[in-house]
Amino acid sequence: MASLTVHPDRLLPAEPAVRDIARRLYAAVRDLPIVSPHGHVDPAILLEDAPFADPTSLFIQPDHYVTRLLHAGGVGLDQLGVKEGPLPEERARAAWRLLCRNWALLRGTPVRYWFDSELAEIFGVRERPSADNADALYDQIAEQLAGPDHRPRALLRRFNIDVLATTDDPADDLEAHARLRDDPDITTRITPTFRPDRYLEPARTGWADGVKRLGEVADVDVGNYAGYVVALEQRRRFFVEQGAVSADHGHADAVAAPLERAEAERIYRESLAGQVSEGEATAFRRHMILEMARMSCDDGLVMTVHPGVRRNHHPDTFARYGPDTGHDIPIATEYTDALRPLLDRYGTHPNLHLVLFTVDPDVFAREIAPLAGFYPSVYIGVPWWFLDSPAMIRRFQESVTEIAGFSRLSGFIDDTRAFCSIPARHDMSRRLDAGFLASLVAEHRLDEDEALDTITTLVTDQPRKVFKL
Amino acid sequence: MASLTVHPDRLLPAEPAVRDIARRLYAAVRDLPIVSPHGHVDPAILLEDAPFADPTSLFIQPDHYVTRLLHAGGVGLDQLGVKEGPLPEERARAAWRLLCRNWALLRGTPVRYWFDSELAEIFGVRERPSADNADALYDQIAEQLAGPDHRPRALLRRFNIDVLATTDDPADDLEAHARLRDDPDITTRITPTFRPDRYLEPARTGWADGVKRLGEVADVDVGNYAGYVVALEQRRRFFVEQGAVSADHGHADAVAAPLERAEAERIYRESLAGQVSEGEATAFRRHMILEMARMSCDDGLVMTVHPGVRRNHHPDTFARYGPDTGHDIPIATEYTDALRPLLDRYGTHPNLHLVLFTVDPDVFAREIAPLAGFYPSVYIGVPWWFLDSPAMIRRFQESVTEIAGFSRLSGFIDDTRAFCSIPARHDMSRRLDAGFLASLVAEHRLDEDEALDTITTLVTDQPRKVFKL
Amino acid sequence: MASLTVHPDRLLPAEPAVRDIARRLYAAVRDLPIVSPHGHVDPAILLEDAPFADPTSLFIQPDHYVTRLLHAGGVGLDQLGVKEGPLPEERARAAWRLLCRNWALLRGTPVRYWFDSELAEIFGVRERPSADNADALYDQIAEQLAGPDHRPRALLRRFNIDVLATTDDPADDLEAHARLRDDPDITTRITPTFRPDRYLEPARTGWADGVKRLGEVADVDVGNYAGYVVALEQRRRFFVEQGAVSADHGHADAVAAPLERAEAERIYRESLAGQVSEGEATAFRRHMILEMARMSCDDGLVMTVHPGVRRNHHPDTFARYGPDTGHDIPIATEYTDALRPLLDRYGTHPNLHLVLFTVDPDVFAREIAPLAGFYPSVYIGVPWWFLDSPAMIRRFQESVTEIAGFSRLSGFIDDTRAFCSIPARHDMSRRLDAGFLASLVAEHRLDEDEALDTITTLVTDQPRKVFKL
Repeated sequence: MASLTVHPDRLLPAEPAVRDIARRLYAAVRDLPIVSPHGHVDPAILLEDAPFADPTSLFIQPDHYVTRLLHAGGVGLDQLGVKEGPLPEERARAAWRLLCRNWALLRGTPVRYWFDSELAEIFGVRERPSADNADALYDQIAEQLAGPDHRPRALLRRFNIDVLATTDDPADDLEAHARLRDDPDITTRITPTFRPDRYLEPARTGWADGVKRLGEVADVDVGNYAGYVVALEQRRRFFVEQGAVSADHGHADAVAAPLERAEAERIYRESLAGQVSEGEATAFRRHMILEMARMSCDDGLVMTVHPGVRRNHHPDTFARYGPDTGHDIPIATEYTDALRPLLDRYGTHPNLHLVLFTVDPDVFAREIAPLAGFYPSVYIGVPWWFLDSPAMIRRFQESVTEIAGFSRLSGFIDDTRAFCSIPARHDMSRRLDAGFLASLVAEHRLDEDEALDTITTLVTDQPRKVFKL
Repeated sequence: MASLTVHPDRLLPAEPAVRDIARRLYAAVRDLPIVSPHGHVDPAILLEDAPFADPTSLFIQPDHYVTRLLHAGGVGLDQLGVKEGPLPEERARAAWRLLCRNWALLRGTPVRYWFDSELAEIFGVRERPSADNADALYDQIAEQLAGPDHRPRALLRRFNIDVLATTDDPADDLEAHARLRDDPDITTRITPTFRPDRYLEPARTGWADGVKRLGEVADVDVGNYAGYVVALEQRRRFFVEQGAVSADHGHADAVAAPLERAEAERIYRESLAGQVSEGEATAFRRHMILEMARMSCDDGLVMTVHPGVRRNHHPDTFARYGPDTGHDIPIATEYTDALRPLLDRYGTHPNLHLVLFTVDPDVFAREIAPLAGFYPSVYIGVPWWFLDSPAMIRRFQESVTEIAGFSRLSGFIDDTRAFCSIPARHDMSRRLDAGFLASLVAEHRLDEDEALDTITTLVTDQPRKVFKL
Repeated sequence: MASLTVHPDRLLPAEPAVRDIARRLYAAVRDLPIVSPHGHVDPAILLEDAPFADPTSLFIQPDHYVTRLLHAGGVGLDQLGVKEGPLPEERARAAWRLLCRNWALLRGTPVRYWFDSELAEIFGVRERPSADNADALYDQIAEQLAGPDHRPRALLRRFNIDVLATTDDPADDLEAHARLRDDPDITTRITPTFRPDRYLEPARTGWADGVKRLGEVADVDVGNYAGYVVALEQRRRFFVEQGAVSADHGHADAVAAPLERAEAERIYRESLAGQVSEGEATAFRRHMILEMARMSCDDGLVMTVHPGVRRNHHPDTFARYGPDTGHDIPIATEYTDALRPLLDRYGTHPNLHLVLFTVDPDVFAREIAPLAGFYPSVYIGVPWWFLDSPAMIRRFQESVTEIAGFSRLSGFIDDTRAFCSIPARHDMSRRLDAGFLASLVAEHRLDEDEALDTITTLVTDQPRKVFKL
């Protein structure tokens, strides 16, 4: 049976002298608490603190990073229990066996890297998963999950997470957050995030009902555009009161473009009547992005932008399993012209923090870093989603720091719904920061004391500053 | 006189510990037989087994990788005998001298790397080409070409090629393939490839005549759209019977988009009458790509796509020398939206294998790897043409394996019409695979036994699986 | 106090064996004279040879590379005296203190790298700038600037610059150049560059007045299109007589597209009347780019193209400070189709040298290198502006040399208005060339004698050949 080991030097540069520097830099930040200002962990998990049901519901079912790779390798999403909730043990075991049998599919991916860390460091697994040991590993993990040390709150403490942001619907009452905040057992700051996408896209199914509900929770008449804007402002204010620090936006493009007031009112009216065209809906959403920036200047919510993904690429899978099931595919996305109207109005506003993410590696050097290298409001979101992986992070580091320096980076964001992967993801980032900074020191571009200061800032101060924590 | 040497460690990583790992990985695959599932070698060369006429007709005239670099350096294509067939000795020698005198133009390119390997390993050349030794080298190579050990079949044996795919016109009778298959002297499987481009683009010169001829060889009335489709289906079936495993498509873009049946019929009718517009012709071709995918699901031919090149960029050179003369230039190409209708219909069909190539390095990480990381039908074509070079292959490896793992790769494809470069190209790929996997081992991201398994799979099983060999 | 040191091995590869090779290659070119065929130094500085006023007017005020990073970090451009001319000492000192206090903002950027070299090598600074030593450093530099060894001509001699190109308005009388040429004290060849952008864009503010003035200095009636063309031809000829070797073009895109003569005449007429639309103005400019290429074939001026930047992105900053104040942001730019009409007509003309620059790193491999790998007129401009930095230069080297070899490179271009940064920029390029070539030698892709010949050619012969010096 092959062993599973996590080497202390993993991901550090291979060249011995550079590795030595990297080791020293990494050692300085390895054990610092985690600040996670953007992610998708469900706060109910922490509120309820119920044991995780089994390895499959923990590692496979909710994580489209994992299921997409298995699906590409020929495993049906039905076999993995995607979007099903807890499975009967036989099915959970069968799904786990599929993962272990197809372990080779993950080679070279960060999913494999995170898995190694999680299995070894959280569950003490010492064998590489395979068809042969799948059941034994299942039992080993399941047993631990049933015990007190692997319940959500115990893990939260063990993960040493100072701040954990969730992602929430603007109509959410944030009751879970309030209760977590009041719970003396929870020392992590668990902060909600305002994610209004579906309220800003009037051509989406269910938009009118959603807006109606938003009006109800805001106690505002949303029968006209003015009320709709007020409702959004009120919900943002409520989120701020409940500890939110940012609003997250994930549309097909990054365009912000103003509409005449009367035109916005007209489209809103027709949208409520179910008569909006695709073009009008897009124009309205681009206008509302500008409104969101205006509100951020007012209420201080950091504005994060995650554009450029064609969601639900495979209609049949979407029909059967719904969204977030592994077939969101990036598209080329423009930022320079797209954001110009927004930056024209608010780019130097002291209250605006605009964090730009992309899944197009070419855009980092061509557009995002030059924007962040001038506008004091613009920060460079670290590699996101498909790009949150070692080589891409290295390319990112090279592409943006030469153009904008280190001070324009967002700090690491894990963006994960896989709770147990949070420490592994942050650790990967710290190792790669150490390796990159070590290469600058080895090439005499930076002194080691500066590299040490830089990596410490990246891990601690920078996310707090960018996300106003 | 400077020597020409091919170092046993060439292309392996410079860092000694990584190189050691790479050496072990490379040693495991160095001598494995070659599987070449896509290329442009003329089967007549092997059928006739005539000696190659001279170094110029072997190395220069047919190879636009070489002639374009000399042309950029100021050498006229006429001086190189491009598209002329065998030259009188004085002109062949003159062309060879131009190559040797301009040897420095090739520095840093893979052409130079392949040349070094071919000259040293096939012809025993020990001196770096230059103006001074051009004639001596010409004589040395010409003498060997005249002998029995350097005739095409002798080289085929020596190159240890298990499978060699050619690229063929759908109207071809594949007589050469049949005779090669029946020849006990040939142990390589030489398989034709269905390349229907010109029959799918009704605005191309000669389209109607081509379609007419296709109808004749298929014995089908192509006077209407239905017959045209049947003729294509029949020719595909004939190719399958003759051992073809794939159909190759190289259009300006990757778009697949359905037409209403009546519209397809109308455009077909008007195309036959010579009245098709550019826009209609493009719409028709995009519709036919969808038809090709449908047929692939039926007859099992692997679908390879090579889009995104502006062919024959320089009109004057095209007028004088025809196509494939070094001035095909890449353009930005979109895959995510372009292929959506095709993947909507056939993306999870068990019979479809869709191999996506690109000459735009940015597309690997942004679109192709994410598609291949979900759709079980999609494979990532290795770096093609301008990108089939060490640094680009490394960037490719990093870009795609982190997103989609190793199992979604096509395996190496040489795509060459330069027969003698086949071993050098495959060897380059194996060295770069060894180097990349060694770096993963050195960074403790993969165990060495896994790297060994991966490189062996990439060289042997993966192309056989992807191309159904 | 932290020390400031410039290590002899800076930027050379970290791996010891590769570094050894790189050292030898670098040593061969380290002290060779500088050839700078494109830049923005004001010739009046050299003509007048007045001492530089103070560190701020030398290092900060004129350099948008510096001021943009400080602005992104929260420093107002007004605090830095941008576009103000010499500042009173207290304000100059205050600006300098802001730079020193924010020194960490520059970490990882080439600006920092150049600064280190300039401070250490020109001014003997031995301490890393900080809030604490800002005043002492100011005094140290100011004192030297007041002395004879740091006046412009003294520095020019010390920098060992053989050729220095300026960038000039077509209506300029080039009096400064004539006087510098006649001055026996100046041994550097100081050559003007024809930069006609604003005369080719009829929708720009002041276009008609500019054209009128151009007609006056050319002594040509520019009341119609024919006269306008003649005026441009005459001014180019005048520039050639005054030693110019190139014409530089920096428009929003790279498109060259012919207009019918009558259409060009019509747009010109309406432009003079102030009635041109944006679309017509763009069409006219694209037509004129083709005319510029025609003129280059006639008069031999090398044509350099710097497209793909959205100038003056932030309207408010533009209104307050004017152009070149740090908010020019790249946009995606197409070359393959854009330049086809130009290359169709002139691509193989023996007089045309067309040097293509980009700020989009993806375009190097996808479009520019393939074009330069066929057309003998096309040269690959080295990384420009945001890309003139170590990692981007390395990516460039890998991207283009494998596709087009070394002979298609422009040689290094500093493109700077920061006079003191010229040696540091050329030195950075030489170090990176040495490192890249060393990696090819270490991987046995090139022999060391070839690498030595290549780097020497790149530093000396190549810019002279490409720019016809």
